[in-house]
Amino acid sequence: MQLGLIGLGKMGGNMRDRLTAAGHDVVGYDTNPDISDVKDLAELVSKLDAPRNVWVMVPAGKVTQAVIDELKGLLAEGDLVIDGGNSKFTDDAKHEQELAEKGIHFVDTGVSGGVWGKDNGYGMMAGGSDEDIERLMPIYDALRPEGPREESFVHAGDVGAGHYVKMVHNGIEYGMMQAYAEGYELLEAKEIVKDVPAAFKAWTRGTVVRSWLQELTADALEKDPNLENIEGFVNDSGEGRWTVQEGVEYGVPMPVISASLFQRFFSRQGTASPAMKAVAAMRNEFGGHAVTKKGEQGIVTDH
Amino acid sequence: MQLGLIGLGKMGGNMRDRLTAAGHDVVGYDTNPDISDVKDLAELVSKLDAPRNVWVMVPAGKVTQAVIDELKGLLAEGDLVIDGGNSKFTDDAKHEQELAEKGIHFVDTGVSGGVWGKDNGYGMMAGGSDEDIERLMPIYDALRPEGPREESFVHAGDVGAGHYVKMVHNGIEYGMMQAYAEGYELLEAKEIVKDVPAAFKAWTRGTVVRSWLQELTADALEKDPNLENIEGFVNDSGEGRWTVQEGVEYGVPMPVISASLFQRFFSRQGTASPAMKAVAAMRNEFGGHAVTKKGEQGIVTDH
Amino acid sequence: MQLGLIGLGKMGGNMRDRLTAAGHDVVGYDTNPDISDVKDLAELVSKLDAPRNVWVMVPAGKVTQAVIDELKGLLAEGDLVIDGGNSKFTDDAKHEQELAEKGIHFVDTGVSGGVWGKDNGYGMMAGGSDEDIERLMPIYDALRPEGPREESFVHAGDVGAGHYVKMVHNGIEYGMMQAYAEGYELLEAKEIVKDVPAAFKAWTRGTVVRSWLQELTADALEKDPNLENIEGFVNDSGEGRWTVQEGVEYGVPMPVISASLFQRFFSRQGTASPAMKAVAAMRNEFGGHAVTKKGEQGIVTDH
Amino acid sequence: MQLGLIGLGKMGGNMRDRLTAAGHDVVGYDTNPDISDVKDLAELVSKLDAPRNVWVMVPAGKVTQAVIDELKGLLAEGDLVIDGGNSKFTDDAKHEQELAEKGIHFVDTGVSGGVWGKDNGYGMMAGGSDEDIERLMPIYDALRPEGPREESFVHAGDVGAGHYVKMVHNGIEYGMMQAYAEGYELLEAKEIVKDVPAAFKAWTRGTVVRSWLQELTADALEKDPNLENIEGFVNDSGEGRWTVQEGVEYGVPMPVISASLFQRFFSRQGTASPAMKAVAAMRNEFGGHAVTKKGEQGIVTDH
Repeated sequence: MQLGLIGLGKMGGNMRDRLTAAGHDVVGYDTNPDISDVKDLAELVSKLDAPRNVWVMVPAGKVTQAVIDELKGLLAEGDLVIDGGNSKFTDDAKHEQELAEKGIHFVDTGVSGGVWGKDNGYGMMAGGSDEDIERLMPIYDALRPEGPREESFVHAGDVGAGHYVKMVHNGIEYGMMQAYAEGYELLEAKEIVKDVPAAFKAWTRGTVVRSWLQELTADALEKDPNLENIEGFVNDSGEGRWTVQEGVEYGVPMPVISASLFQRFFSRQGTASPAMKAVAAMRNEFGGHAVTKKGEQGIVTDH
Repeated sequence: MQLGLIGLGKMGGNMRDRLTAAGHDVVGYDTNPDISDVKDLAELVSKLDAPRNVWVMVPAGKVTQAVIDELKGLLAEGDLVIDGGNSKFTDDAKHEQELAEKGIHFVDTGVSGGVWGKDNGYGMMAGGSDEDIERLMPIYDALRPEGPREESFVHAGDVGAGHYVKMVHNGIEYGMMQAYAEGYELLEAKEIVKDVPAAFKAWTRGTVVRSWLQELTADALEKDPNLENIEGFVNDSGEGRWTVQEGVEYGVPMPVISASLFQRFFSRQGTASPAMKAVAAMRNEFGGHAVTKKGEQGIVTDH
Repeated sequence: MQLGLIGLGKMGGNMRDRLTAAGHDVVGYDTNPDISDVKDLAELVSKLDAPRNVWVMVPAGKVTQAVIDELKGLLAEGDLVIDGGNSKFTDDAKHEQELAEKGIHFVDTGVSGGVWGKDNGYGMMAGGSDEDIERLMPIYDALRPEGPREESFVHAGDVGAGHYVKMVHNGIEYGMMQAYAEGYELLEAKEIVKDVPAAFKAWTRGTVVRSWLQELTADALEKDPNLENIEGFVNDSGEGRWTVQEGVEYGVPMPVISASLFQRFFSRQGTASPAMKAVAAMRNEFGGHAVTKKGEQGIVTDH
Repeated sequence: MQLGLIGLGKMGGNMRDRLTAAGHDVVGYDTNPDISDVKDLAELVSKLDAPRNVWVMVPAGKVTQAVIDELKGLLAEGDLVIDGGNSKFTDDAKHEQELAEKGIHFVDTGVSGGVWGKDNGYGMMAGGSDEDIERLMPIYDALRPEGPREESFVHAGDVGAGHYVKMVHNGIEYGMMQAYAEGYELLEAKEIVKDVPAAFKAWTRGTVVRSWLQELTADALEKDPNLENIEGFVNDSGEGRWTVQEGVEYGVPMPVISASLFQRFFSRQGTASPAMKAVAAMRNEFGGHAVTKKGEQGIVTDH
């Protein structure tokens, strides 16, 4: 079937390839003219037969809002917009309402899988009406991995539910990554294990901790056993923050997901951390500690 | 090849079946005579040709120690004992030394996979000399899943290294389980998602969080969608504690693994938690809070 | 000076007493007629000379909003409303704007000290214009403890800044309480200390951890050494949640304040915790653990 | 009374001054000859009348062990050694036993107060027999602040109990410092408060969070409002680690104290953190993130 696809970066570009390979007719737009099929959104819309389906795959927030605003002006009643980016679930109701003013339908879809999705297929979580989801099913079936549909796709609920499940997915992802990372650091610190990358690789089959992230960690360690070329500096992309804020809002204890998020924050501060400066300042105030640093005046003990 | 196997519970019993199916000759002992091949360890040893290999698969601590003590009296120079239980890595050096006094070899092997290992195969992490590990390789190959050996087996280092890797494996497992659990609770609390079990199941293929634990969670939710038959009461089995204590010893930050462990501790306390009693007592002291409970005397605000 | 005071609960009632003792003329209103000076807000306003000062000391959220709505209809240009409750700082800008439509001034003031404030004085953090704060200074000076003004009062910034500082104050309070509580629980668990209440009391002078909360803990333990009459069940009153959500919003790592908050959430769930049910369910799935409970089939080991 | 005092650093030197001012006769020894009263321990012992009391105030671990070993050779039956350093409580039983072989008594005493103790007095927690504690009471009374004895001194239990209470005291201290530090960082990040140091200072009287650490923080911020001269790099001195390890041993949830400890560990790693390198490596593997950094190829979205 026909699909307009806006945003042809790492995710959108690969999705276009996978959809095309499955026989779908994709008209893609990107701000980079070298990879764009059309010169602007007006041309994209003009190349699609009504009722149109347009998948938006651009950064969440202002960029997504701008695309949706422009599509509202270009599309017609009965057309359908899918937001496949990492938008906050609260944006979805707003976008649904804005587009509904012109009779344009809206579906939100969280897409997981990274650069591997092109070959492996993407896991997807969608929110919208039964009719709209049904209408898009050929697209979802082409994007998802082989195997039973329910193992890689869920119609999670009304508009917003897809992004909500994707948000929680990413929160869990933060926790899992941090768990592996802590285990890795301890294995490195202990020096009892002669080949830490081999230990991670040996968890691939049969163990309780086997997972795709475990395999990726093993791959990364195979290429760079001491992670010498990596900076311990990790950004966050919004979903982790929203997950924790939702947990707080609903009284859900989130010690693990919050800790994972805070480690990312902290990784970007280093010794510029205001909190750790404050702790150091307190220690200086109650004394002994400055002297500990110098250590040159005989036997000294702590506070 | 021949193997003595001590302990035929959920793990040992399944391992016997898997080894036998692979053509190995297993002499099994258990305190339960209904499932034991021999009446005692002396008979077990007598049924094996020297040099013997005896795999101990019993609870860590006192039970393992008692079995090793008895084996030391029964086995001869050149024989080999494998501790496949969840012993603390510090026990391994002790056991190695005790057995070495009689020329008996020792290998430690962490075994992962639970009840599924019988059919799927077990992931294993071994510590010991190259010669001893080589000698046991037919056993390891029969126990592990199909596929490349390095994806389910690692010779992690000298004696103790196998249990160390298994310990870290279990620490990571705690963190992963807690991450999924927090995500589950938020999805349940929010009530935006119409079918939470379906959301977990849809993560099976293509997503970043896909894993064996995710599949098990989806299975559990399929059987009992609201987990109505489960008590939120979780024991810990030692490795999580040791992992955190090792992290503290080596200056490794472990916010996620420690938080997972502490939630398990806390789950067993409920409102009997001395710490939360202390917090409640402090709030009572500085006031207002008792009154908040009653709420019947007009407009009241917090401290 | 004259002050209208709305809300005569634990906090407001004590504040009236303290203000009256300092020679101020307080007209108090409460929904409980037994303690109210006037029958309604209209009568309260009528008893004050313009320009009036009216301090609102009622629960944050709907109750505060309703009082401010009613005051907007009753007060006149040049009058001043102080919100002394635990309102969220984001409410303050809204209230300021609503009242400004009629030329009514607005000041927010976080008040700390609990039931002890009546005798000890209250610590206060205010947000508003220099003129409005100056106008209220006789009231602040009467409410605060003796000693230098800057040790118990801060004009923190524009409207909202007072409640923001109070919010952070309460977040810190959560962390401190949890720190003492964890130490208490360990002392109780270890049983090396013959008199835990005496240990807490001995921290009152000279130590690094001496504080008012430490003294309150010592008092509580003196009265009930094993906290037998206390349930380990702790509510939260909003500020802790907002503090964590603000930390997440601004990329500030908050491992301690968030952990304190989550323990409170968790204390209210006990074994009904959905997350811990999910962890227990996962353990059941990968096996061994159900059997561990029964333990009747001979030697059994963990997964 | 007479007291031998070994170690005249920040703590020991101040204690000598305070004891001398109270009329006690202190013979002090330090490896720094400029501040030492005697040339070695033998001379120190020779200057004291039997039965002697010798207070050891040197770094925990090897230095303390060496001093105790030497004292064992020099002292006689009926003499008494006090370990006032930050020794681990498990060392105390060992030291008690070693000295008992020669009939020398042993008392452990945790001392808190830092450099301020000289003028304010020290909070102390002692472990030992009733007789030995009674014998030392004039020394304790001189060292502690004015006021009721039970507010600054506790005979916590048998040998080891004093250091145990001090260990828990320091664990609590870690948690409190981190709580204030997180609050400080949020106030700095938000920029709603015009004078953060003034906010901290205003918590000195009347508030729930008032404490000595809060006053020290206010003092530090007064001197260096943005903590520009402080590195956010914080060491730990043993007690925090032991507290967490004890909590894990006894099944005591310690989310706050452990988080405080881990932040200190992490503050010393910065972007060299192996765990955060591992997280970054995983993100690179599943893709999109490397591209996010460059950002130059059109519209790109996250994984």
